[in-house]
Amino acid sequence: METAGVLVRTGLSEYLGISKSDIQDYLTAFLERKKRELERVGEWGPDVSRRLEEFARRGKMLRGALVLLGADLFGRERDGEEVKVAAAVELMQSALLVHDDIMDRDEYRRGGESVYAQYGGLGRALGLPEPTHFGVSMGVCAGDVAIFSAFEILGTLKIGGRSLSSIMSLASKEMTYVGVAQMQDVYLGQSAGQVEEGDIYALYLYKTGRYTFSLPLMLGGLLADAPNRTIDSLARLGERLGVLFQMKDDEIGLFGNTEQTGKPCGSDVAEGKKTLYHLQLLRAAGSTDRKRLTHILGSRSIGNDDISYVRRLVVELGIRDRLEEEMERLADEAHAVADGLGDVDVSVLGIVHELVDFNLKRQM
Amino acid sequence: METAGVLVRTGLSEYLGISKSDIQDYLTAFLERKKRELERVGEWGPDVSRRLEEFARRGKMLRGALVLLGADLFGRERDGEEVKVAAAVELMQSALLVHDDIMDRDEYRRGGESVYAQYGGLGRALGLPEPTHFGVSMGVCAGDVAIFSAFEILGTLKIGGRSLSSIMSLASKEMTYVGVAQMQDVYLGQSAGQVEEGDIYALYLYKTGRYTFSLPLMLGGLLADAPNRTIDSLARLGERLGVLFQMKDDEIGLFGNTEQTGKPCGSDVAEGKKTLYHLQLLRAAGSTDRKRLTHILGSRSIGNDDISYVRRLVVELGIRDRLEEEMERLADEAHAVADGLGDVDVSVLGIVHELVDFNLKRQM
Repeated sequence: METAGVLVRTGLSEYLGISKSDIQDYLTAFLERKKRELERVGEWGPDVSRRLEEFARRGKMLRGALVLLGADLFGRERDGEEVKVAAAVELMQSALLVHDDIMDRDEYRRGGESVYAQYGGLGRALGLPEPTHFGVSMGVCAGDVAIFSAFEILGTLKIGGRSLSSIMSLASKEMTYVGVAQMQDVYLGQSAGQVEEGDIYALYLYKTGRYTFSLPLMLGGLLADAPNRTIDSLARLGERLGVLFQMKDDEIGLFGNTEQTGKPCGSDVAEGKKTLYHLQLLRAAGSTDRKRLTHILGSRSIGNDDISYVRRLVVELGIRDRLEEEMERLADEAHAVADGLGDVDVSVLGIVHELVDFNLKRQM
Repeated sequence: METAGVLVRTGLSEYLGISKSDIQDYLTAFLERKKRELERVGEWGPDVSRRLEEFARRGKMLRGALVLLGADLFGRERDGEEVKVAAAVELMQSALLVHDDIMDRDEYRRGGESVYAQYGGLGRALGLPEPTHFGVSMGVCAGDVAIFSAFEILGTLKIGGRSLSSIMSLASKEMTYVGVAQMQDVYLGQSAGQVEEGDIYALYLYKTGRYTFSLPLMLGGLLADAPNRTIDSLARLGERLGVLFQMKDDEIGLFGNTEQTGKPCGSDVAEGKKTLYHLQLLRAAGSTDRKRLTHILGSRSIGNDDISYVRRLVVELGIRDRLEEEMERLADEAHAVADGLGDVDVSVLGIVHELVDFNLKRQM
């Protein structure tokens, strides 16, 4: 198959950049129309459209780009419909983040104030009696409006009926999975009880694997009318990419360098985040170490000594090597699945391989 | 046109009862399947499916019944697809209520515990450190899962592509309106500032009119392939039905009898709810009365004397008569729109007229 055009004669980062710009143009135009349309309902209509546009713009739009990548892989002629699906996926992601930030009480997101925090601040400025609750309530609504808008975009797709219904079914079904995965995450975040490795893997699989990687790639594949067998392969590719991405995230959270990540050193340790590293560490440590670890993990008042100690133990007990090997195995599998996708555009396939390597090698 | 069959040779309340039973059967089967499917993601999957099923079951399912009514009006042959749309509409309504209850901190809903309150109780039982926040977080997720599931049901529709896309577009677009209307409601609930009558009407129009009545009727009409002009008439019919319903709600909130409504006498007065009655009262009252009213409206510690005083003033200042007349005018308009719908099933049309009269005359 020939390459799909100049758009894909690029590397991964160029591809992501160009994709983001296309998706952003569509989203901006859509939300600009929405702003005028929602004005009839009341003053908060234009307000929420504007905030969603600004919030979406701040994202990297990786998921949207993966929709385009999935379509380009199979040489789908660009006609604007694939950008709509990508934009819907991005709006959905913004919606989930708006809701997640309420759950995690995150005031900052994507380099700026989170949406619920913006409304909380507005509530304070307006002198409302319960500004924080106002922020939460408006945030829940803003997320809902974003979800509905995402489906509204899908409803405008000008593609065959069969294809619309498979896109709708796939997207909504996978979204129910990510909703449940988020419930698991909320529970694990509060629960002091024993967490099983299986719980962590399930979270990585559904919250990052299937949602962030498989779903967009599959949507792109459906748009390009790829056969069902190939759609299944895209799902498997995405699962590996996502679990790998998440494991790498945990590695960076423990071993990462503050200058590169922008996060305080060992923040996962201080937050007591339930990562595979921490779980395997607690299981493998002797009783003295386990006692000290129990004090350190989740304690906000730890020092650099504690972080170095945790890092050393993870290395000494062979956990770093074991998880590293697992990540390499996932990357190998992902490369192999990508190579077995069949009749694809080779230059787009190159970008897929680059993405696998990026997920394995990234330092931030 | 002939009647659609024995199903519609009934009055309004029988029609609602039969419809609820059909919709409930579908929803129960769907959520039972979902329970098994979501088990893979984690233990909260079956949990949320079960709670949503139980919560939906407690509703009257008026909106779902209106989908069926809209389809039956134009003699659509029942093939099960219309029940899917009705079930999707009901699941969407459950989702909005789950989210609304978080915003209003309503612990009870539909004759039982609200979903977020259930999770809060569970968090306490599990000894989680922040059970209320756990309840809020899980409630946000549960509502999201319900929204996604509703769209998933729409995605399974086996109807022509054109029709699926118009159903998707209409539903998602109207849902963005109700999301914004909910933001208006949240703001009006907290704001001490001047509220305009136009704000109240816009809320009634979008939160009750278009969402509760127009949208389901229009979806039913679309399923029956009714012409665009007729779909517009269904929208107008629903708007009148909804504004009427909401105005009646306010009348009952002020003049209703506790034994019939199950609510404490004058609860809208005590809550300081911004109704058309209260707004017009504050505008029409002389300065002495306005002063007393300002103390009464929204004061939790008012007595029966205060309620009687407010009621008397609403009558004496001619507000009750004026709003009564407006409701009658809306009912007349609704009857006229219904009669102009064209080639419809006359016995189903009878149910529509009955619904208009019910909205005008109901005492509870």
